[in-house]
Amino acid sequence: MFERLAFMNAGSEGPLPARAADAARERIRSEAERGRGGKVYFEQVLELASTLRSRCAEPLGCVSEEVALTGSTTDGVNAVIGGFPIGPGDEILTTDEEHPGVLAPLASARRRRGAKIRVVPWEEIPAAVSEDTRLIACSHVSWMSGRLMDTEALAATGVPVLLDGAQALGAIPVDVRTLKCDFYAAPGQKWLCGPSGSGSLFVRAERIDELEIAWPGFGSVADHEQPLDSGPAEGAARFDVGFPAGVRSSLALASLDVLAEAGWEWIHRRGPELAARLAELLAERGAEVVPRGPTTLVSWRAADPAAEVERLFNEGIVVRSIPGGGLVRASVGAWSSEEDVGCLAQLAS
Amino acid sequence: MFERLAFMNAGSEGPLPARAADAARERIRSEAERGRGGKVYFEQVLELASTLRSRCAEPLGCVSEEVALTGSTTDGVNAVIGGFPIGPGDEILTTDEEHPGVLAPLASARRRRGAKIRVVPWEEIPAAVSEDTRLIACSHVSWMSGRLMDTEALAATGVPVLLDGAQALGAIPVDVRTLKCDFYAAPGQKWLCGPSGSGSLFVRAERIDELEIAWPGFGSVADHEQPLDSGPAEGAARFDVGFPAGVRSSLALASLDVLAEAGWEWIHRRGPELAARLAELLAERGAEVVPRGPTTLVSWRAADPAAEVERLFNEGIVVRSIPGGGLVRASVGAWSSEEDVGCLAQLAS
Repeated sequence: MFERLAFMNAGSEGPLPARAADAARERIRSEAERGRGGKVYFEQVLELASTLRSRCAEPLGCVSEEVALTGSTTDGVNAVIGGFPIGPGDEILTTDEEHPGVLAPLASARRRRGAKIRVVPWEEIPAAVSEDTRLIACSHVSWMSGRLMDTEALAATGVPVLLDGAQALGAIPVDVRTLKCDFYAAPGQKWLCGPSGSGSLFVRAERIDELEIAWPGFGSVADHEQPLDSGPAEGAARFDVGFPAGVRSSLALASLDVLAEAGWEWIHRRGPELAARLAELLAERGAEVVPRGPTTLVSWRAADPAAEVERLFNEGIVVRSIPGGGLVRASVGAWSSEEDVGCLAQLAS
Repeated sequence: MFERLAFMNAGSEGPLPARAADAARERIRSEAERGRGGKVYFEQVLELASTLRSRCAEPLGCVSEEVALTGSTTDGVNAVIGGFPIGPGDEILTTDEEHPGVLAPLASARRRRGAKIRVVPWEEIPAAVSEDTRLIACSHVSWMSGRLMDTEALAATGVPVLLDGAQALGAIPVDVRTLKCDFYAAPGQKWLCGPSGSGSLFVRAERIDELEIAWPGFGSVADHEQPLDSGPAEGAARFDVGFPAGVRSSLALASLDVLAEAGWEWIHRRGPELAARLAELLAERGAEVVPRGPTTLVSWRAADPAAEVERLFNEGIVVRSIPGGGLVRASVGAWSSEEDVGCLAQLAS
């Protein structure tokens, strides 16, 4: 339809670098031709997973022993909420700008384990901690508004913190030590430009043994001969969800290579800069941009967000609407151009 | 190293048909070139998932509303054991030939929910049902010996049954109505020759609402605007684990096409026939083949199984050992040849 669509939806799924696509295609070719079996094959699959674990630790700012490989942010959230010691009356605090990937696991903790789920406005969460609060579960960057959580205030509460990093990891600087969070769940397919159905979970070393394994399997037990009576496998790998498929690892690693070569520092500066520029241009042209932070998301009000998204698509720009929020959201990556941003501002308002 | 290895390990991962590899490669190329976003892209991803759900229903013998798309057999087992109403003292009955993918979730139900896990010899399970037994969780085909469960006797107990179909779906005829089971968890990458990290779960229609959603997320709630207070999504899709990636669906569908064209009836006859021939040849040559059923697995005793697997690999045949079992196991698919079977029998004994 178009020479080229301007994709501004990395908040759903990011661009797939050509080199990453090639790596995955080559891996599939090799698996079909050489077969999926034998010691060499399985050692290679495990080696790729182990390399990916280390490489995921880099943008998180942790060690690989603290990383679980998952299939989504939601997997990580479920691993934490499902494995965290929570009983009747214990409170989990969250905000009014959370994604179903956080809210659905919270609803389950309430229904099945009697947890109290308290939802407070985004900016009030640090002050809302009560003596019943056992866990804070919220976004690092709001998927609705692009606001940045005051993680310093969260850490100051002393309550364990799970951050949903869906709109942060790869988009803005993330360092779990600086954030002082206990758990950080992130996707692979958004700002890391990795495979659909990939993700990572950081579990702070001191928390690993406190967290039950909510989704156990072959990889979560130390003793494969006595899985019924075995202790857990070493490190956060015990929380891995799913088979670490060679195709998934190959693609993820190649995408991380592309990003690392472009330079994390540049990526983390360029994306937010362009997003800020978009917000500015939109506001200048009269759009009602909602309060945001130094992030890569820009949301503005629309009478009919779905129709507006479709109209923009027909103009060659891919953005999305936020269910129930009356908002249209653009995701601005370091790979976006001044031209894309300019066009969108002109067309949207 | 070899002109061609004889892969007899579909019980771990099956062969990847050339046509399936092509479909996945093409899908990746298209996602990299056209981008992963916009209404058309997401509609296509959902459409592929919906088609895959229907196609998975065929070899299971159920309707697509009873199928959840998962990333592994273990995902399905966790969805059932984690979601089944079980409390302190309730018993789950299992056998002494189960995979860690069943035993690890059972260990978790014991530790976290006070369930009593009773392990009985394979053939004794139907008679071992007590008045405390709330669920039977066992293999349809033993991954160790290749024995076939007496599912008629299981059904006659009246206790809900979860079958682990890891060594059955695609290998032998499966019909969940005939089996009268309530839950059937299966892999995609073994006997269905699909992508690594894929699987399906059958949940009998009458059981869908009884089963809690153990791993909730975006797809499990009916109302995406109010996920905290939403009811469940329609059908067994609420138990889906992970994003239904287009690449995974495309590959799985193409593999199912290849198998359907070869003919399920032929596949289900040919694999077990060749496996029986292998067992016969091995026994004739003095190998101690363990008691098995009309399935596609053949296991025999070895003093040092790992060394035997390596020796056979060096002869060009890919088989595996069973941890702690003192066994070497060959997986014989309809795609295996008389020659492979003859070679293995000659070399193994």
